[in-house]
Amino acid sequence: MARANESFLKLPSGYLFPEIARRVREYEHEQRGASLIRLGIGDVTEPLPPAVAAALRSAVEDLTRRSSFRGYGPEQGYDFLREKIAEHDYCARGCEVSPDEVVVSDGAKCDTGNILDIFGGDNRIAVTDPVYPVYVDTSVMAGYTGPADDSGRFEGLVYLTATPENGFTPDVPDEPVDIIFLCYPNNPTGAVATRETLTKWVQYAKANGSIILFDAAYEAFITSPDIPHSIFEIPGARDVAIEFRSFSKTAGFTGVRCAYCVIPKSLTARSPDGQEVPLLDLWIRRHTTRFNGASYIAQRGAEAVYDSEGNRQVQTLIRLYMGNARIIVDALASLGLGVYGGENAPYVWVKTPGGESSWDFFDRLLREAQVVTTPGVGFGAAGEGFVRISAFNTREKVEEAVHRIKTHLSS
Amino acid sequence: MARANESFLKLPSGYLFPEIARRVREYEHEQRGASLIRLGIGDVTEPLPPAVAAALRSAVEDLTRRSSFRGYGPEQGYDFLREKIAEHDYCARGCEVSPDEVVVSDGAKCDTGNILDIFGGDNRIAVTDPVYPVYVDTSVMAGYTGPADDSGRFEGLVYLTATPENGFTPDVPDEPVDIIFLCYPNNPTGAVATRETLTKWVQYAKANGSIILFDAAYEAFITSPDIPHSIFEIPGARDVAIEFRSFSKTAGFTGVRCAYCVIPKSLTARSPDGQEVPLLDLWIRRHTTRFNGASYIAQRGAEAVYDSEGNRQVQTLIRLYMGNARIIVDALASLGLGVYGGENAPYVWVKTPGGESSWDFFDRLLREAQVVTTPGVGFGAAGEGFVRISAFNTREKVEEAVHRIKTHLSS
Repeated sequence: MARANESFLKLPSGYLFPEIARRVREYEHEQRGASLIRLGIGDVTEPLPPAVAAALRSAVEDLTRRSSFRGYGPEQGYDFLREKIAEHDYCARGCEVSPDEVVVSDGAKCDTGNILDIFGGDNRIAVTDPVYPVYVDTSVMAGYTGPADDSGRFEGLVYLTATPENGFTPDVPDEPVDIIFLCYPNNPTGAVATRETLTKWVQYAKANGSIILFDAAYEAFITSPDIPHSIFEIPGARDVAIEFRSFSKTAGFTGVRCAYCVIPKSLTARSPDGQEVPLLDLWIRRHTTRFNGASYIAQRGAEAVYDSEGNRQVQTLIRLYMGNARIIVDALASLGLGVYGGENAPYVWVKTPGGESSWDFFDRLLREAQVVTTPGVGFGAAGEGFVRISAFNTREKVEEAVHRIKTHLSS
Repeated sequence: MARANESFLKLPSGYLFPEIARRVREYEHEQRGASLIRLGIGDVTEPLPPAVAAALRSAVEDLTRRSSFRGYGPEQGYDFLREKIAEHDYCARGCEVSPDEVVVSDGAKCDTGNILDIFGGDNRIAVTDPVYPVYVDTSVMAGYTGPADDSGRFEGLVYLTATPENGFTPDVPDEPVDIIFLCYPNNPTGAVATRETLTKWVQYAKANGSIILFDAAYEAFITSPDIPHSIFEIPGARDVAIEFRSFSKTAGFTGVRCAYCVIPKSLTARSPDGQEVPLLDLWIRRHTTRFNGASYIAQRGAEAVYDSEGNRQVQTLIRLYMGNARIIVDALASLGLGVYGGENAPYVWVKTPGGESSWDFFDRLLREAQVVTTPGVGFGAAGEGFVRISAFNTREKVEEAVHRIKTHLSS
């Protein structure tokens, strides 16, 4: 008799974004013709940079000729891309990362979920609260936790609470944990980690033999010159960290699909008999067995991001979205709301007025201003009383959205 | 102290194909300028069908205009593709499959590996021997097995031996198992399952509450009219089977990346407290949490396979590869070797002459005929004494390969 993975049954019925989609559909059904502005899910809206589009076109043509046809590529990614990543994203910033430490995939969501496969089931995992839900849900599905309590927190996970008081960068735990998911610039709060904060984490991980799973999917949005873009800018990080990055938000690849992670060769975890096992080897083994490489077309598109023209075009996109973030921050601050993030990240984290709940404020913004946001409580118990507003939309729609919000919240 | 997944350490050091690649590189290094013909890994060589290329181009253009830009799509795949799959691959053959039972992904290798995530760790898994290594390696990595014995068989798996005597279609086990990986047309042996064989499997699964994981990645290569293309052609299969298919081998998508699986809504497994849990729900949950959809570009390319022109072009490709298979079968049979498969599958399974080992014969074909094959023992203990020859190459190279093999094996 086949058994289902019972750990899945511990999860609440809906992942956050499908639940939002359901409420939005319901509202649209009630109010036919409602002109919704979507600042909920962090999905890009601008077309691909022309240099990327040209590379994609050329990759498609490669596949139409026998002489340039590419079938299965290396599961870890093509060298043409891994070399560019190591050079431009790391070496150029003074980080020691070699191309064979870069493993290309079809998404950072996939990578941050799949990475737990290479760890043993008896690790103690820490996450922040609020948190990108994938880290928690994957930990639950992989059997790392007990059931959830009434606030939605799972037994067995260590939650590090992010609050306005700690600048949404919670301190290292006062107990040993084995694996820590960190995300800076943060989704959902938009907070960033300073060099001092990251140094403390690296020191903590070294002292406790922990591994930091560092999600840097939003590093390109950092505007302050003194904020590290990579955890590998911190001395010693190569012994304790894995970093995840993506082309999704920077180059508009949410539909194209390409990302990567960096696992230093020196990074190890322990086997039960005390052996030091290189995690890069395990990840490559997982990748070659359960994955068949990102699309050749997508990898060629990603490569173009590193040309000077591609890079310039990506910077233009980022400036557009960060300009949107500025508009959102200014508008909501002018209403007297507590507003966080939006300076080095494309997300603005907003305190609901008068102690209103996240979902109530979400529903009010949806039904009164016809603006879709994301309820903060969807990211964890400590997100209650906040909503996340995404800067990913056209300038015109962002301006219209803040106009509507100002009109309805002032009235 | 972070722990590594110790189950990974049970695997032998190299996945089969990387090991072959290593030997080939070594030989190429010794014999610079050797003109190798690759009939090893089952990778397509012909350019994409023109209808697919046109769809890919058009999808790239969609992403260059704001009005037609697509970011995140539904993780399960776009309806435009799921509807075509249900209609053409299933309804047209009399199988009851609805579009919402079709889940699109980036590869059948990924799907057949990832599917175990939705099952509990206490299931007993059966595989054939020889077998596509992904099923075994994933089972090991997920902790379903003990260590391997000297022949490479893992403790805890039930092996069903495929031999010339049983036509490489082993009978149902005489003990209850919970999950069975079946692959027909078979990789590596090229064997197919008749309606009677599949009916026996469905009856076995019904009697034992088992789930059949049916890998039909090669169904398009079936030429005999009475061989089922889908397990869902068998009455009752909707209660016991999941089917996996791919665009890789049919439409040349090994580098593009698109595949799908079908999980009937009626299919359930048990939770420990005896609940019937719908497996489609668990798979969707896994997909939405740990995956972000196949590339929009790839999905548009796959859609084109179902247009009349695309379909005609795919049939032409399949006829080419199956013509190659015929040439390989005829040539090796003329040498007096035991030759199997190649009639309804793009793989030819060849008995080594004079009791030679798989790797010895592989090395001899590599070093004497400069033809790369796959040693049968790489697919399992029962593959010892065989090699697999793939029909995926140009007609010219296949003709040259069989010429060389005939020259060297006759001398």
